[in-house]
Amino acid sequence: MILVNENFLKLKAGYLFPEIGRRVRVFAAENPDAPIIKLGIGDVTEPLVPAVTKAMHTAVDEMAKKETFHGYDDGGVGYEFLREAIVQNDFKSRGANVASDEIFISDGAKCDTGNMQEIFGLDNVVAVTDPVYPVYVDTNVMAGRTGENDGKGRYGKMVYMPCTAENNFVPELPSQPVDMIYLCYPNNPTGAVATKEQLKKWVDYAVENKAIILYDAAYEAFIRDDSIPHSIYEIEGARKVAIEFRSFSKTAGFTGVRCGFTVVPKDLVAYTKSGQAQPLHPIWNRRHCTKFNGVSYITQKGAEAVYSPEGKKQVKEVINLYMSNADTMRAALTEQGYQVFGGEHAPYIWLKTPKGVDSWTFFDLLLNKANVVGTPGAGFGAAGEGYFRLSAFNNPDKVKEAMQRISKI
Amino acid sequence: MILVNENFLKLKAGYLFPEIGRRVRVFAAENPDAPIIKLGIGDVTEPLVPAVTKAMHTAVDEMAKKETFHGYDDGGVGYEFLREAIVQNDFKSRGANVASDEIFISDGAKCDTGNMQEIFGLDNVVAVTDPVYPVYVDTNVMAGRTGENDGKGRYGKMVYMPCTAENNFVPELPSQPVDMIYLCYPNNPTGAVATKEQLKKWVDYAVENKAIILYDAAYEAFIRDDSIPHSIYEIEGARKVAIEFRSFSKTAGFTGVRCGFTVVPKDLVAYTKSGQAQPLHPIWNRRHCTKFNGVSYITQKGAEAVYSPEGKKQVKEVINLYMSNADTMRAALTEQGYQVFGGEHAPYIWLKTPKGVDSWTFFDLLLNKANVVGTPGAGFGAAGEGYFRLSAFNNPDKVKEAMQRISKI
Repeated sequence: MILVNENFLKLKAGYLFPEIGRRVRVFAAENPDAPIIKLGIGDVTEPLVPAVTKAMHTAVDEMAKKETFHGYDDGGVGYEFLREAIVQNDFKSRGANVASDEIFISDGAKCDTGNMQEIFGLDNVVAVTDPVYPVYVDTNVMAGRTGENDGKGRYGKMVYMPCTAENNFVPELPSQPVDMIYLCYPNNPTGAVATKEQLKKWVDYAVENKAIILYDAAYEAFIRDDSIPHSIYEIEGARKVAIEFRSFSKTAGFTGVRCGFTVVPKDLVAYTKSGQAQPLHPIWNRRHCTKFNGVSYITQKGAEAVYSPEGKKQVKEVINLYMSNADTMRAALTEQGYQVFGGEHAPYIWLKTPKGVDSWTFFDLLLNKANVVGTPGAGFGAAGEGYFRLSAFNNPDKVKEAMQRISKI
Repeated sequence: MILVNENFLKLKAGYLFPEIGRRVRVFAAENPDAPIIKLGIGDVTEPLVPAVTKAMHTAVDEMAKKETFHGYDDGGVGYEFLREAIVQNDFKSRGANVASDEIFISDGAKCDTGNMQEIFGLDNVVAVTDPVYPVYVDTNVMAGRTGENDGKGRYGKMVYMPCTAENNFVPELPSQPVDMIYLCYPNNPTGAVATKEQLKKWVDYAVENKAIILYDAAYEAFIRDDSIPHSIYEIEGARKVAIEFRSFSKTAGFTGVRCGFTVVPKDLVAYTKSGQAQPLHPIWNRRHCTKFNGVSYITQKGAEAVYSPEGKKQVKEVINLYMSNADTMRAALTEQGYQVFGGEHAPYIWLKTPKGVDSWTFFDLLLNKANVVGTPGAGFGAAGEGYFRLSAFNNPDKVKEAMQRISKI
């Protein structure tokens, strides 16, 4: 008799964003004329930049000719032209030591952050911040690393590290031993960033406790203060304890194109139950090459163009546009009396909901009264209750309009 | 202490094709002038057809403009324009009943066949043919559904169904209870096909035994006899027991573009240990939307064009070219005295190695003496020993040249 993976039955009914999509569709069906402004899911709105589309057109033409056609990307780990551009621009330029064969090109950071847990044993204790990007939690639930859902959004065995206004969104080191630590900076959803000193504490903790840090840096391009690290490998010792996830989704508007990458340093090890150290690079390589077959050549050529001089300039302009939205939102919401966090080095504004209004109620209120879609903090975890995320990804005019409408409710 | 997933340590050192790549690189380094002809990995050589590249250029232009830009593919399951084209052309046209919301667009059948096992319990018994596409086996090893490797390429707990010349490459129904059955027709690597009657036996077996069939139809476009089923859903009852995997890789030369899809019918269930039936469609949907973020809009527009009148005509011409290579190879090798199988409804020729020559020795012999790369049968499983796979994906001239060279050794 075919058995189902019962861990899936522990999951809450829907992944957060489909549930938001469902509510918006219901509202739109009942109010077909409502001029909805979406500041919810965090999807980009600006088109691909010219340097990228030019490179993609050229790549499509190459794929149309026998002499320049590309089939499988050998091994599926990504073309050297892209991996080398990443090494030079994302790591060497910031003094971080990463080699091109430690980089695995993928179809996005969501997939990689979801898949990476597979190479670790099921007995590891997982630590996440609360609130947190739901993928880290849900994929560990599916794998069986947690107990049951407590009905309030928390799972047994998982260690939650609250990040609230009270601790300035800086999680404390866990008081109990943990093995897999998910960190995301600039943070989704709170918009908080980590200083070098704060990250150093985590690296030292991981070294001491033989833990692994799964570091999601998908939003590093939004950092505006040069002293804030873009990569965990800017921290001494990180190569021994950290895997880093990156994405072109927000950096270069690739949400609908799909490209990201993951760094698995060769210094990393995990242990067998008998205590034998096992290098993780070959294990992830085996996983990647067995279950994945590479990213489109056309996409990889587009990603490479992000690092060209024009590409860099063009994507920077787009990021500045989004960040100027964030400035607008911070100013308007603060003026309206909201307590506002984030939005300084991240495309997300994290605000406190009005007293006595929970985050899904605030979601419905904004949707109904202002026709503005945001994301309820509770969707990111129990400690996200009482907070609300607004994304800076939209046209400046729409963002201003949304702020005006919110001011009237 | 961070624990590794020790199941990975059960795996043989390398995935088959990287190992072949390694041997070829070593040979090429030592013999830089050797005119190597690759009939190994099964990668396509013909460029994308004009209908596809035209659609991709248009899609790139759409992505370059704000008004027509596409971000996330909502939910990541694929655009309706593509899912509907698939329903009409791949299923309705053959009398198979599949709805568009049962189709999940993905970045390829390798990923889907590898990932699908996640939604099933770890106690299920897995049955595979031998020889077999290694991904089915390796991904179940990684998940922990098998015992140790016996050193001869077989894993404990897994049920192997030999397919050899003796049984005409038709596996027998398992004599012990099995829960997850991987079938691939037209078969990789043997090139064998299954008749309606043969598939009906499997469907009936699965219904009776509450088993699930994981049906890989990645090569259906190569079928030349209309009475042979292209989809398992042409068989009555299959909607209750079968998941089907499809790919644009070989059909439309998308190995370097990455697009495929999987059908999970709403009639499918698996069971909890206590015997409660759980529909699988919502569970796979949850898995897909949590760990995957959709396929590039540009790629999906290219895939849609495969179903346009010009697209259909153009991809058919490419398939005919490859199949005419297969005809050439069958004829030449038969004349040379080899026992030849497959290649009639599949792009793979499966031949018996000369008496006393094992398949890796034959691989080295072909590489060294004829500078031709094939795939040793033993790489596909213990029962593949004594066989050898040659792929029909290459230029007709190179294929003819390869046959001539082989005739001289």
